[in-house]
Amino acid sequence: MNDLAIHLTEEKGKRLYEQIYEYIADEIREGKLLAGEKLPSTRSLADYLQVARSTVELAYDQLQSEGYIESVPCRGYFICRVEELYRFGKAGGSGTKERKEQEGKERRSPAGAEKRFDIDFSPNAIDMNLFPFGTWRKITRDILSGDRKELFALGEPRGDLELRRTVCRYLHASRGVNASPEQIIVGAGNDYLLLLLQYILGRQITAAFENPSYRRAFRIFSSFAERTVIVPSDESGIRADGLLAAGADVAYVMPSRQFPTGTVMPIGRRTELLRWASAAPGRYLVEDDYDSEFRYRGKPIPSLQSSDTAGRVIYIGTFSKSVAPAIRISFMVLPEGLLEAYEKNCGFFSSTVSRIDQSILNEFILSGAFERHLNRMRKAYREKHDLLLECLQPLLDRFRLSGEYAGLHMLLTSRGPGREEELMERAAACGVRIYGLREAAPAPFEADCATVLLGYGGLSPEKIKEGVRRLDRAL
Amino acid sequence: MNDLAIHLTEEKGKRLYEQIYEYIADEIREGKLLAGEKLPSTRSLADYLQVARSTVELAYDQLQSEGYIESVPCRGYFICRVEELYRFGKAGGSGTKERKEQEGKERRSPAGAEKRFDIDFSPNAIDMNLFPFGTWRKITRDILSGDRKELFALGEPRGDLELRRTVCRYLHASRGVNASPEQIIVGAGNDYLLLLLQYILGRQITAAFENPSYRRAFRIFSSFAERTVIVPSDESGIRADGLLAAGADVAYVMPSRQFPTGTVMPIGRRTELLRWASAAPGRYLVEDDYDSEFRYRGKPIPSLQSSDTAGRVIYIGTFSKSVAPAIRISFMVLPEGLLEAYEKNCGFFSSTVSRIDQSILNEFILSGAFERHLNRMRKAYREKHDLLLECLQPLLDRFRLSGEYAGLHMLLTSRGPGREEELMERAAACGVRIYGLREAAPAPFEADCATVLLGYGGLSPEKIKEGVRRLDRAL
Repeated sequence: MNDLAIHLTEEKGKRLYEQIYEYIADEIREGKLLAGEKLPSTRSLADYLQVARSTVELAYDQLQSEGYIESVPCRGYFICRVEELYRFGKAGGSGTKERKEQEGKERRSPAGAEKRFDIDFSPNAIDMNLFPFGTWRKITRDILSGDRKELFALGEPRGDLELRRTVCRYLHASRGVNASPEQIIVGAGNDYLLLLLQYILGRQITAAFENPSYRRAFRIFSSFAERTVIVPSDESGIRADGLLAAGADVAYVMPSRQFPTGTVMPIGRRTELLRWASAAPGRYLVEDDYDSEFRYRGKPIPSLQSSDTAGRVIYIGTFSKSVAPAIRISFMVLPEGLLEAYEKNCGFFSSTVSRIDQSILNEFILSGAFERHLNRMRKAYREKHDLLLECLQPLLDRFRLSGEYAGLHMLLTSRGPGREEELMERAAACGVRIYGLREAAPAPFEADCATVLLGYGGLSPEKIKEGVRRLDRAL
Repeated sequence: MNDLAIHLTEEKGKRLYEQIYEYIADEIREGKLLAGEKLPSTRSLADYLQVARSTVELAYDQLQSEGYIESVPCRGYFICRVEELYRFGKAGGSGTKERKEQEGKERRSPAGAEKRFDIDFSPNAIDMNLFPFGTWRKITRDILSGDRKELFALGEPRGDLELRRTVCRYLHASRGVNASPEQIIVGAGNDYLLLLLQYILGRQITAAFENPSYRRAFRIFSSFAERTVIVPSDESGIRADGLLAAGADVAYVMPSRQFPTGTVMPIGRRTELLRWASAAPGRYLVEDDYDSEFRYRGKPIPSLQSSDTAGRVIYIGTFSKSVAPAIRISFMVLPEGLLEAYEKNCGFFSSTVSRIDQSILNEFILSGAFERHLNRMRKAYREKHDLLLECLQPLLDRFRLSGEYAGLHMLLTSRGPGREEELMERAAACGVRIYGLREAAPAPFEADCATVLLGYGGLSPEKIKEGVRRLDRAL
C-alpha cells in the first residue's frame, strides 16, 4: 500500500492535498484500491511524498468526509465499499446532472434514487396537504395590494426589522430563546447561514461533529473550516471531553432532537457543553433546532440557547419544516459578542430574502395563522406517528425502536448483527424505500447492528400501513 | 515609523496579519499615525516583526482595501485621511447599528448618510413608480391559485429548470450570451453568487480589479481570495498587461458599462482580455453585466461572454435593476469547464430563491410583461437622462461630462484641480447629495481633478431641474 504513485505537481489552482485526495479517490473508484485495504498512515505517506503531515491529513479528512475511507481508532484508515458512494460531477450527460440536482434537494437524505418506490419512508418529507394555501394567498394578495412600494426596495442585510422582532417574540415564547432583534440574521436557508459562519467565526477553526450527524452541515463546515473533526458521542450526545481532546472551537449540535438518531440531549450534557464553551475564548456551540416544533409527548424541551449565559450559542432555526421548504427563510441568532465580527466581515452582504416574502411570513406569524398551522401539523404528525408505532409492533421481536415521540422519523435497529444495506435492499425489493443510518453519517462508522430510518411526515395512513406490512414480510 | 510597537500573540482565532492590520488601523483611527505619513515597506516590517513578508502584505492589502492606507507606485504606502473612512462595528448603540444597516443597503454608494438631503443624486436609485405592480400581483395570484403545491417544495439547487431556460433565451436574445440552462445558477442576489465563486474557483486565487470599481464585489473577493489586487486601467478599461504583471487568475470587469466610470470597453480591449484569459489554465473573467438594459444611443453592446470561445467568462446578471431590488434574483452563467467544480464543491447547497418567486419571475418574462416594462423604463430613464444632460450645460465651463448615453448616472470632472470632498460638501450645504468617484473606489487613488457621480434613476424631472440649479450655484 505504500506504493501510491502520486505525482504532486505545482499545477496552478490545485492544492497538494487536493491532488492526494483526487489520486486516492480515483484509485478507489477505479477499483485499484479495494474495500477493506489499509491506507498508509498520514505520517508515512507525508514522509514518502515529502509534504507536511497536515496536508495528508487534509486529504484523508476529505476522503473520509465523502465516504471513501473510514478511520478505525488505533488501527488506521481503511477503504470503504465504493458502491455506497454518492458521486458528484464525474459522470457526464445532462440526464445525470438533472438527477443529481434532484438528489441534492433531499435534505438529510443523500442516498441516490435510481429506483422507483411505491412507498418512501423519507425522513425529510413533510405533509403539504394541510398547508393553508388559502391563507397564504390571502396574505400575499393583501400585501401586494397595499401599494407598499417600499417592499420592492432592497431591505436591511439582516432582514426586515419587523420580521426580526416577530421571530424574537416567537422564539422566546416557544423555545425560550433570549435575543434582541439585532442578534437575528434572516437568510435564504440554513446552508446560506452556515456559509456566513466562515465570516463570523473565521476559517481558522476546528469544527466538531458527532457521527452520525447532519451530513449537509458537515459538508458545509468542511468547505471552509481549517479542520472538521468527528468527536465521540454517547447516548446523551456529543461528549464535552471529546471536544476538549479534539481541540474543537465549534461544535455543531441538535440538542432538542439529534438528526438522525433522535437523541434528546439531557440537561447534564447541556451543562457540560456550555461549560466547555465558556472555558476558553473563541468556543461556540452551533445549535440547529431544525424540527423542534414537533413533539408528541411530554413538555417541549427548551433550546440550549435559553441556558446560555456566556453568549456561546449560535442558534439556527428554519421555516422550511414548519411552513414549507420553498419558503427559503431561515434565521440565526448570534450571541452579542459576535455581532461586531458579523458587521465587519459580512454585514454588508445584501439580504438574500425578498422583502415581500419576509412581509408575508411576518403577517403569517402575526395573524396567528402560523400557530394554528403548527398545531394542526402537530396533530396530523402525531396521528401518523402513533399509527406507525402501532404498525411496527410485529417487528419489535427483530428490531429495537428509538427516536419516537418527536420529529418526523423513528429508527429501527436490528436486535442481532446485520447490515443496513441488506435491510434497504430487501425493502427496495418490495417497493419500499427506507434509509440507512450510515447514509446520514458524515463519516463511516462501525456498528454491530443495522439501523434504518423510517420517516412518516409525507405518507398517508394507508401508505404507512401498507409500507410496514411489506417491511414486516421483507425484513 | 519603524517603531510600530506591534505585539504579536499566538492568541487563538486571531491571525498574525489581522493583528498587524488592527494595530495599524487603530493607530490611524486614534490619530497616532497621521495622513500622509509613510509606512515601513512590507519587507522591513516583516523583518522587524519576524513574520513572513506575505503576512505584512496581507495586512497592508486589508488596510488598503478599507481605505486606511494607499499605495503610491515606486514610493510605498501612505496613511490616508481618516475622515473619509467608512467605519463598521466600532461604535456601539442600537441606533448606530440601524443606521449602519441602512448604509449597507445602498448598492454602489457606500458613503454615510447622517444628513437629510432634499435631492439625492444616488447612482443606485431606480424608479419604482413605473413598476407594473398590477401585473405582478396578477401573476402572483394566478400562480398561487393554481394549486401548484410543488411550488412549496424545495427546488433544484441551480434554480428551477423553467426559469433557467427562460433566462437562457432572454440572455441570448438580448445580450448574445451563449449558454445552456445547465450553465445557469440562479441565486439570491449578486453577493451570494460571488460568494459561491470561492467554491468554484477556489480561494487560492489572485483576483484583479480596476480602480475605481464596484467596491462591494471587491470586498467580497477580498473576503475569500488569497490575494485581491488593483490593476492599472486606461480609457479602455482594465489592462491585460496589468493582469499578466499582477499574476492575476481572475479579473472582475463590467465591459458593457463600467461602474462607476461609465466606460464602455472597446472590442480591442475585449479581445486582449479574452486572449489573456485563454493563454493559461485557471484564468477567468467575471463579467458583471449589471445595468446593460439601459442604453440610450447606438446599438446595444453585446456581452463579453458572447465573444468568449474558450470558456473563460463567468457572466453575472441581476433582475435587481431591471425588475426591482427586492426581487433578490440574480443569475450566473458558468463556462462548461467549471460545472464540475460547481457540482462537486457547492452543487449541494440548497437554492436560495423560493420556487414561488422563481415562477412569478418566469411568468413575468414569458408573458412579455418584462420586455414591456424594460422598454417603458428605458424610455423613462432616457427622458431623465436627456433632461439632466440639458440642465448640466451651464456647468460645462467648469466640468467635463462623461458616462452619458447609458446606465443611470453620469460623471462630472472638474476642469481644474479640485477635491471631490469639497464639491460634495458644497452640494450638501444646499441640500443636494452627490457622490464622489473615490467613494466608489476599492482603494484610494490619485487624481488631479475632482469627479462626482450624478444618478438620475430615482429623481423626478422637477427634482433633477432643481438639483442642478442648486449645483450650478454651489459648485
